[in-house]
Amino acid sequence: MKTARIGILTVSDRAAAGVYEDLSGKAIVETLSAFLTSPWEAVYRLVPDETEQIVQALLTLTDAEGCDLVLTTGGTGPAPRDITPEATEQVCEKMLPGFGEQMRRASLTFVPTAILSRQTAGIRNRSLIINLPGKPKAIRECLDAVFAAVPYCLDLIEAARLETNPDHILAFRPGS
Amino acid sequence: MKTARIGILTVSDRAAAGVYEDLSGKAIVETLSAFLTSPWEAVYRLVPDETEQIVQALLTLTDAEGCDLVLTTGGTGPAPRDITPEATEQVCEKMLPGFGEQMRRASLTFVPTAILSRQTAGIRNRSLIINLPGKPKAIRECLDAVFAAVPYCLDLIEAARLETNPDHILAFRPGS
Amino acid sequence: MKTARIGILTVSDRAAAGVYEDLSGKAIVETLSAFLTSPWEAVYRLVPDETEQIVQALLTLTDAEGCDLVLTTGGTGPAPRDITPEATEQVCEKMLPGFGEQMRRASLTFVPTAILSRQTAGIRNRSLIINLPGKPKAIRECLDAVFAAVPYCLDLIEAARLETNPDHILAFRPGS
Repeated sequence: MKTARIGILTVSDRAAAGVYEDLSGKAIVETLSAFLTSPWEAVYRLVPDETEQIVQALLTLTDAEGCDLVLTTGGTGPAPRDITPEATEQVCEKMLPGFGEQMRRASLTFVPTAILSRQTAGIRNRSLIINLPGKPKAIRECLDAVFAAVPYCLDLIEAARLETNPDHILAFRPGS
Repeated sequence: MKTARIGILTVSDRAAAGVYEDLSGKAIVETLSAFLTSPWEAVYRLVPDETEQIVQALLTLTDAEGCDLVLTTGGTGPAPRDITPEATEQVCEKMLPGFGEQMRRASLTFVPTAILSRQTAGIRNRSLIINLPGKPKAIRECLDAVFAAVPYCLDLIEAARLETNPDHILAFRPGS
Repeated sequence: MKTARIGILTVSDRAAAGVYEDLSGKAIVETLSAFLTSPWEAVYRLVPDETEQIVQALLTLTDAEGCDLVLTTGGTGPAPRDITPEATEQVCEKMLPGFGEQMRRASLTFVPTAILSRQTAGIRNRSLIINLPGKPKAIRECLDAVFAAVPYCLDLIEAARLETNPDHILAFRPGS
């Protein structure tokens, strides 16, 4: 079975400057470790909230590193430096608005400010890119809300096959 | 009472190649037959998943055939050949994001992979175009979820007046 | 405490022509008066459904008048003259799709035609712009649905601080 490559891109001025530890990237790794039973390896990148650097990191993770899935964290709010969704849209060939809708709806059950999140998702060639929030707790909530659909999405774009641990997340594949 | 013209556009490489029968187009006709009590006629087209052919078919159905409503089926997923929403956006003057949101939300009660659907809707001149999924069962679920708003939408763009059978769908017109 | 400036932009051919009174603008003022306990002042504009006039009014309210928040009413439906969302998008640097999703979802509990609304929201520099519907009753329903997130959004873009009356709306600020 092919080892899936999963890009983890932390977008944060302060983490990139070494002001604090990147707990968000760690939260993604922990969640994926709980979710996945098939072999995978992480490809990690950390950049500040600069469009050009986010775009370049996304291109490296998808085109050069061949990641099947790329999860970004940070930069999805309304503040002036939050530009991860725009950078994501710039590299994607098609957008999947249902991911953003579903993550905001899930987060709304916790905080009314969830509507301020501009998270989106899209496809570049054989990679699925999903924006996650910056806060570690919210990362898990959002992955809980959408991950059941991720393995089938990767099947459809001919990326690596993912198997999940049903105690944590139940992957759904229509017709199977 | 003016006979409404309803375009049914099946977008499918395999159906267009004659590999299998277009059951999706049939499912749309059956649902409309159950829903509508006012006179209507179907204008049918079948094209492969090619942007230029989808765009041309949409232009023919709206501008040349004068359809009040155009329902597409197929090509709304994340796979490389799925490009119906982009073709739809290309011909529309304004988009109606509430249709996609509501159809995905309705489909989510059946399958978690509903977030992968990129269905949208929009207006071109006096025609409302709505993307439906490819699977016959999902077509009915999506029409159940949004059709109550379709007759009033056609009123607002000065298209044909639709009357519905309240045993199947209850059209809502504010203030009436 | 800085007095917040709140732009109220009524977009309506008939109100602009003096055919009827602008009850929508009044409904916004009444709702804000009930919601806000911190000092604020209204900056009012009324324009017909013309893209150029809406864009100019939005630029005046944000850039020249320095409004922290701009609430538009009218022009968000599918009819040919409804172009407020497009004008809004034209002046915004970033869009906040969660507002439109949440307002449509809230309105759907009252009318199935809520999916026809194309309301959106976005940021221009230090101003948050939100499209509200044209009907006074629907204005209050939409503000009820999203206003809890507005004060924190203004904090994030360094606009004026808003305090709310918890009997009417409970502003939420994460981590506070």
